[in-house]
Amino acid sequence: MNEKNDYFMHQALALAREGISLGHGGPFGAVVVIEGEIVGRGWNQVVRLKDPTAHAEILAIREACTTVGHFHLPNATLYTTCEPCPMCMGALYWSRISKLIFGATGEDAASVGFDDKQIKVEIRKSLNEQNIDATQRLHNECRDLFQQWQSSDMRIDY
Amino acid sequence: MNEKNDYFMHQALALAREGISLGHGGPFGAVVVIEGEIVGRGWNQVVRLKDPTAHAEILAIREACTTVGHFHLPNATLYTTCEPCPMCMGALYWSRISKLIFGATGEDAASVGFDDKQIKVEIRKSLNEQNIDATQRLHNECRDLFQQWQSSDMRIDY
Repeated sequence: MNEKNDYFMHQALALAREGISLGHGGPFGAVVVIEGEIVGRGWNQVVRLKDPTAHAEILAIREACTTVGHFHLPNATLYTTCEPCPMCMGALYWSRISKLIFGATGEDAASVGFDDKQIKVEIRKSLNEQNIDATQRLHNECRDLFQQWQSSDMRIDY
Repeated sequence: MNEKNDYFMHQALALAREGISLGHGGPFGAVVVIEGEIVGRGWNQVVRLKDPTAHAEILAIREACTTVGHFHLPNATLYTTCEPCPMCMGALYWSRISKLIFGATGEDAASVGFDDKQIKVEIRKSLNEQNIDATQRLHNECRDLFQQWQSSDMRIDY
């Protein structure tokens, strides 16, 4: 088990190293594995793609979903070189991935300047206590969207 | 101010309604605005794109970054028909958007079956207490990536 896990972790490490050497973004790599096969690969490409959401885990999950043709990956394992940030943990839950193998910690990432720790602190607060200027408008109109959706013939739950 | 905010919120509402009618995904829309101009549009496309990260806010932020050619949007406001889920709040922080206008609440979304509430509960716990099978492997090798990155000529901080 550890041998198998370390094999896939080394794949994630290799992606991270290549990403660093190409200047694509931060030092992070990830793979998604289903039944012993890699179905998604990702490395941080925030700088290259000019996309703040282009974390290794997000890209690996998106590629895995393309490979399997579904937005849920219940039998998948995500291997990532670092504990996922809150954005990526959210993506993990939405994708229904049930197993996570990680290497470095969020503390390690924060210690070299990444925002992980600060974002984790913010996201644990309720919205009105977070370090963002948040205002609620058109509550009723926006809530009505849920009714439109619930009665839609096109509705597919996820 | 409220008039301006409601104008952009109505744009987000229109995107959400169109997305519902086309069966693209959940009932959510968003726009990113800089200096009074919409620079990014998004509506939930989880079902259409088979991508669990294709939330309205993520797509709007990605489009806005493409428009401005940068992975940071410090002067932007995100208008969204619903309080962002933890994944999208994470994206908001990584993008450095400083203002958020939202309509419905995460509670509203949870009440019609979306996972927002449950994800919020999980993400507030430390990793080993969360409802995911998480294992740490190759800590040292993965931490070494940060040193490789810090000494890389290609390094661009974000």
